[in-house]
Amino acid sequence: MSDKVRVVINGYGVIGKRIADAVVVQDDMELIGIADVVSDWRIKVAVEKGYPVYASTLQAADQMHAAGIPMAGVLDDLMNQVDVVADATPKKVAAANFEKYKAAGVKSIFQGGEKHGLTGHSFVAQANYETAIGRDSTRVVSCNTTSIVRTLGALKNAGLLKKARGVLIRRATDPWESDHSGVMNTVVPETVIPSHQGPDAQTVIPDLDVMTIAVVAAHTTSHLHAWNVELTRPVSKDEVLAAFRAVPRIAFLRASEGVVALNSTLEMMADLGRPRGDMWEVGLWEDSLTVKDNELFYNYQVYNQAIVVPETIDAIRALTGIEKDGSKSIAKTDKAMGLVRDFLAPERALV
Amino acid sequence: MSDKVRVVINGYGVIGKRIADAVVVQDDMELIGIADVVSDWRIKVAVEKGYPVYASTLQAADQMHAAGIPMAGVLDDLMNQVDVVADATPKKVAAANFEKYKAAGVKSIFQGGEKHGLTGHSFVAQANYETAIGRDSTRVVSCNTTSIVRTLGALKNAGLLKKARGVLIRRATDPWESDHSGVMNTVVPETVIPSHQGPDAQTVIPDLDVMTIAVVAAHTTSHLHAWNVELTRPVSKDEVLAAFRAVPRIAFLRASEGVVALNSTLEMMADLGRPRGDMWEVGLWEDSLTVKDNELFYNYQVYNQAIVVPETIDAIRALTGIEKDGSKSIAKTDKAMGLVRDFLAPERALV
Amino acid sequence: MSDKVRVVINGYGVIGKRIADAVVVQDDMELIGIADVVSDWRIKVAVEKGYPVYASTLQAADQMHAAGIPMAGVLDDLMNQVDVVADATPKKVAAANFEKYKAAGVKSIFQGGEKHGLTGHSFVAQANYETAIGRDSTRVVSCNTTSIVRTLGALKNAGLLKKARGVLIRRATDPWESDHSGVMNTVVPETVIPSHQGPDAQTVIPDLDVMTIAVVAAHTTSHLHAWNVELTRPVSKDEVLAAFRAVPRIAFLRASEGVVALNSTLEMMADLGRPRGDMWEVGLWEDSLTVKDNELFYNYQVYNQAIVVPETIDAIRALTGIEKDGSKSIAKTDKAMGLVRDFLAPERALV
Amino acid sequence: MSDKVRVVINGYGVIGKRIADAVVVQDDMELIGIADVVSDWRIKVAVEKGYPVYASTLQAADQMHAAGIPMAGVLDDLMNQVDVVADATPKKVAAANFEKYKAAGVKSIFQGGEKHGLTGHSFVAQANYETAIGRDSTRVVSCNTTSIVRTLGALKNAGLLKKARGVLIRRATDPWESDHSGVMNTVVPETVIPSHQGPDAQTVIPDLDVMTIAVVAAHTTSHLHAWNVELTRPVSKDEVLAAFRAVPRIAFLRASEGVVALNSTLEMMADLGRPRGDMWEVGLWEDSLTVKDNELFYNYQVYNQAIVVPETIDAIRALTGIEKDGSKSIAKTDKAMGLVRDFLAPERALV
Repeated sequence: MSDKVRVVINGYGVIGKRIADAVVVQDDMELIGIADVVSDWRIKVAVEKGYPVYASTLQAADQMHAAGIPMAGVLDDLMNQVDVVADATPKKVAAANFEKYKAAGVKSIFQGGEKHGLTGHSFVAQANYETAIGRDSTRVVSCNTTSIVRTLGALKNAGLLKKARGVLIRRATDPWESDHSGVMNTVVPETVIPSHQGPDAQTVIPDLDVMTIAVVAAHTTSHLHAWNVELTRPVSKDEVLAAFRAVPRIAFLRASEGVVALNSTLEMMADLGRPRGDMWEVGLWEDSLTVKDNELFYNYQVYNQAIVVPETIDAIRALTGIEKDGSKSIAKTDKAMGLVRDFLAPERALV
Repeated sequence: MSDKVRVVINGYGVIGKRIADAVVVQDDMELIGIADVVSDWRIKVAVEKGYPVYASTLQAADQMHAAGIPMAGVLDDLMNQVDVVADATPKKVAAANFEKYKAAGVKSIFQGGEKHGLTGHSFVAQANYETAIGRDSTRVVSCNTTSIVRTLGALKNAGLLKKARGVLIRRATDPWESDHSGVMNTVVPETVIPSHQGPDAQTVIPDLDVMTIAVVAAHTTSHLHAWNVELTRPVSKDEVLAAFRAVPRIAFLRASEGVVALNSTLEMMADLGRPRGDMWEVGLWEDSLTVKDNELFYNYQVYNQAIVVPETIDAIRALTGIEKDGSKSIAKTDKAMGLVRDFLAPERALV
Repeated sequence: MSDKVRVVINGYGVIGKRIADAVVVQDDMELIGIADVVSDWRIKVAVEKGYPVYASTLQAADQMHAAGIPMAGVLDDLMNQVDVVADATPKKVAAANFEKYKAAGVKSIFQGGEKHGLTGHSFVAQANYETAIGRDSTRVVSCNTTSIVRTLGALKNAGLLKKARGVLIRRATDPWESDHSGVMNTVVPETVIPSHQGPDAQTVIPDLDVMTIAVVAAHTTSHLHAWNVELTRPVSKDEVLAAFRAVPRIAFLRASEGVVALNSTLEMMADLGRPRGDMWEVGLWEDSLTVKDNELFYNYQVYNQAIVVPETIDAIRALTGIEKDGSKSIAKTDKAMGLVRDFLAPERALV
Repeated sequence: MSDKVRVVINGYGVIGKRIADAVVVQDDMELIGIADVVSDWRIKVAVEKGYPVYASTLQAADQMHAAGIPMAGVLDDLMNQVDVVADATPKKVAAANFEKYKAAGVKSIFQGGEKHGLTGHSFVAQANYETAIGRDSTRVVSCNTTSIVRTLGALKNAGLLKKARGVLIRRATDPWESDHSGVMNTVVPETVIPSHQGPDAQTVIPDLDVMTIAVVAAHTTSHLHAWNVELTRPVSKDEVLAAFRAVPRIAFLRASEGVVALNSTLEMMADLGRPRGDMWEVGLWEDSLTVKDNELFYNYQVYNQAIVVPETIDAIRALTGIEKDGSKSIAKTDKAMGLVRDFLAPERALV
């Protein structure tokens, strides 16, 4: 048996399929299989890619069989063959799964659709990798919360953060969805202020003073955040940029280079040859970032489909303890996946 | 000759056609005509409605003639027959027009696409009606700026406003446009922070401490603003609501009544039988409005096609001096047009 | 008791609320009440408009009571006070309702979401008014099917129709919907050819040779149909236009007048002062209509929210027998509601 | 000097950048450089990819210099170093370019935005490769026309085609565009029937009996065509499928596998690891394809950003004469780029 960490992905959807691809490019991990309940093109692509395909349930196994999917088995059979399961199943499914993973003695990682209470630990690699080492389970927080922890964490690390007030303009549904799950030609403000993302960031950095208003807008191409931050003191724009540059997984976008909207960023990712056009970094607009006395204003883009994927890879290392140093895990993950600090001049990257 | 104020509308577009309808329902104004340069359905509808149609230019007159539009004349001929022209022509056209109006001794009102410097006076009725009395010209500020002045003005009147930070989620183009002027499936943040709307409000209320970030989103159904306001002191939600209720042209929306998005509001306006489904009031969500210590958070909707129309009516009265009391003009305008303080219980209206 | 037909509307949604308004303007009908199960702004607007509001169910009555809706009663109590119920409830609800109406001896009209088999009769006024006279119930066919019957019926009446092949580009959801029911940035072709609308038209005109392909596109502003018709013989464009002009409820749109897209049409309707901006007519593009030998090509717009409303009014007259002549009912309905044959020159109307 | 064909791409936009990538993977071609007039992220990505970057004009050279783009030179200097230029510049620019290419004795290939008359030859590899051999120039027809030639050509090859009537539902703008070039929440029918695509297919297959109606819908994710074809005789569905399978660059989509909309197809392309998620094949829905007597109905998807790229590669071989057999060129291109006949079972591919 290999001494690589043996990983299974349960839930081969938007997030799960990306975790699978990310596991494959790590030299200290082995993808034992992916599991799901669907039998359509989504799982057939996994077959084409050569991933061992498991049915998450017995019912799903019957359906996969009927659909002619070559199955490696059912998820339960796999439990004694793996070290960790990355669970990317839909909300509510995961809680029941957790009992199964615990009973089998398999470590488990959940995604941000679950509540903090499920595992009692919420994870963003650059903020609290060390606290996850050796744990049985953790929750990688949602894409929005991950971006908040990365950016406000950077300001906090630099001693600049007093309080932060953000407006989150969320995508309505994912780009592939055609089953009448979208919102059209409107903006839908959430009915409660603050929205949950602010408090959720506090599950990772407890003493953040953060409030968020969230709305859903009529697009599918990722989230945009607009922030107003009160700093601890008046600073220069350069000092703020340096604070952001000092942490991983934030990369700058520049309107002066024609990167002016969520979709132009994504076209650039595709042009750069990234798999699925993914942007794993928080894409922060450098030129519109504005400092006025002790106030800071900026926008950034959160590519919701991918931003949590490198975090999940790090979480695998933390839970299994194969790497005790968070910054080393981050560097290893980012190199393997291709994260940069500057999309158009990656040689400038610090990673 | 009637002693009503004689008004002509130059520019019968999204705003101009609404001003025309609003002038018609005032008992102290007379619509002498509308002028434009187009010859298509837009102007043919004006003919159907019985409005005297003028060509804004000689070239337009030729085209209208060719299109069979029954014309009352050209705009220039009208200059000695009217007291005031409401100019709703596109940006850049207005400056040249202004010279013509001045030369003819006709008072003029411009829209928010023009800069403050054009007329040297910017107008929102509830904030500075009196300063416009007897002037030769003014500029009714843009829809976004009007909404900022109404709402922040209300908080300022109540002694509650310290500073305000807003995020403006703008509609991409107007609902009728089909000439490839939209943005699709993206969000486009403005490249400069603050966006111009904050400073623009200061042309009406000079000492406002306001900063705005603006983005364009992928919808046509009006703007949504999300605000974070620092108050002068900790207050209750009721006190804030009372401050908003104390001024005209703000009406509450309630998610608890199912009014949860820009488009549900607009359906309600249409159901209420409003002409063109217009909402002239700032529609402020009452139930999500949140106070936390001395901070206030809220969202409101700005129906960009109509919100400045009652302001323009008041500006006509102010320039011509037929009403010296701003609050009386506002009340008169609002009664004639049908503005309310509460859409679903208008008997509760204070107007 | 009045000798007007006493009507109740069950289901005060997109269609139901329009039927209510249309009943109110008929001089031979009386709106006894509207009934629904919701308690939010939608029903509160009905209260504002002065319509007697009934709860469709006892459970709804409790909720309306809790929401402070002034209720006139529950639907069941009304059954012995009305002559006919126009049922515009969602699919599946209607079948159960039908038993109730029958038991109470009340005539009933269903909408196109129901199947032909429910009542055994499908209705489009200009095609088969007479066959509905005195019946206990009928189904007004869907917006798409109504448009097919009107237009192909016109060609058939003129002896021109051999066969018709249409592509239906449907709106994804209604404009007011914000509850994630839309499709975004895609086109979704129906998985079965022919789509149901073609055969459905045969429930009204049995011997139509019609096939349809349907897709859902990413807009909310009504449907667009593109047709290729094989004629019985080569004809001139004028002859085709005359065939369409010879029937009611088809009106021409002209790109040469700037009416170039679904949304420009709707802006014109709003500008014309129509309630809710409704277009009850099939809006057929006159200038792009093309005849080539014995083939005919054209596009038209189906305003799905309103096109069936005048049909429902006629159905009320047919079932109750207060008017035996279909063309008289149509003329009466159209005059009361304001239908025209030419939007920009209604004096040319034949109605 | 290599004996590979030396190619330069003029115009590094949506099409040009894809041609560049496709040239690079051919073993008988060498990408000498790419040229453009922009200086923003689009060209900076080309630099990152290691492509020699040229300025298309002297003015552009100044701007690239100012923007710090490492330039290999200007396009004119390159003319004596290349065999063929693939011109993917915007409409109207190409005509002037053509004179330059001719003067320099460089063969040239234009895209479908240009008219047939520019070069006097229009190209689709499977239809008329041989007629382009040795020519100085050709025009690769547009994405829509290419798809028409591929599919109707297949039916014609099989002796099945009598006449074809299509409705083209076009995307409004490309996914990366954020400069207000889109249409929102509407459908815009073209004002002339037939639209130009039908006649344009006749520049490749002169005797096609084809008519098209085109509309623009509110999405960016490629085109959808809906066809009604009159066959020469009644046939089975299997016979039709065989006719399509007998030609290259048509691949089947199946709703039964969950591929139900333009965007689900594109997600599948991305999942399959295709560069930029491109689909070079016509994606034809196999399960909804319907035959009724001698009539055929089907839908297919045209990925407008990529479908003409393999055609351009073949055109390079045809003009330069390095391959005289069209089917060998097609097979070579398709293997290098990765085209398949069945996305989910490529081992079934005939290529």
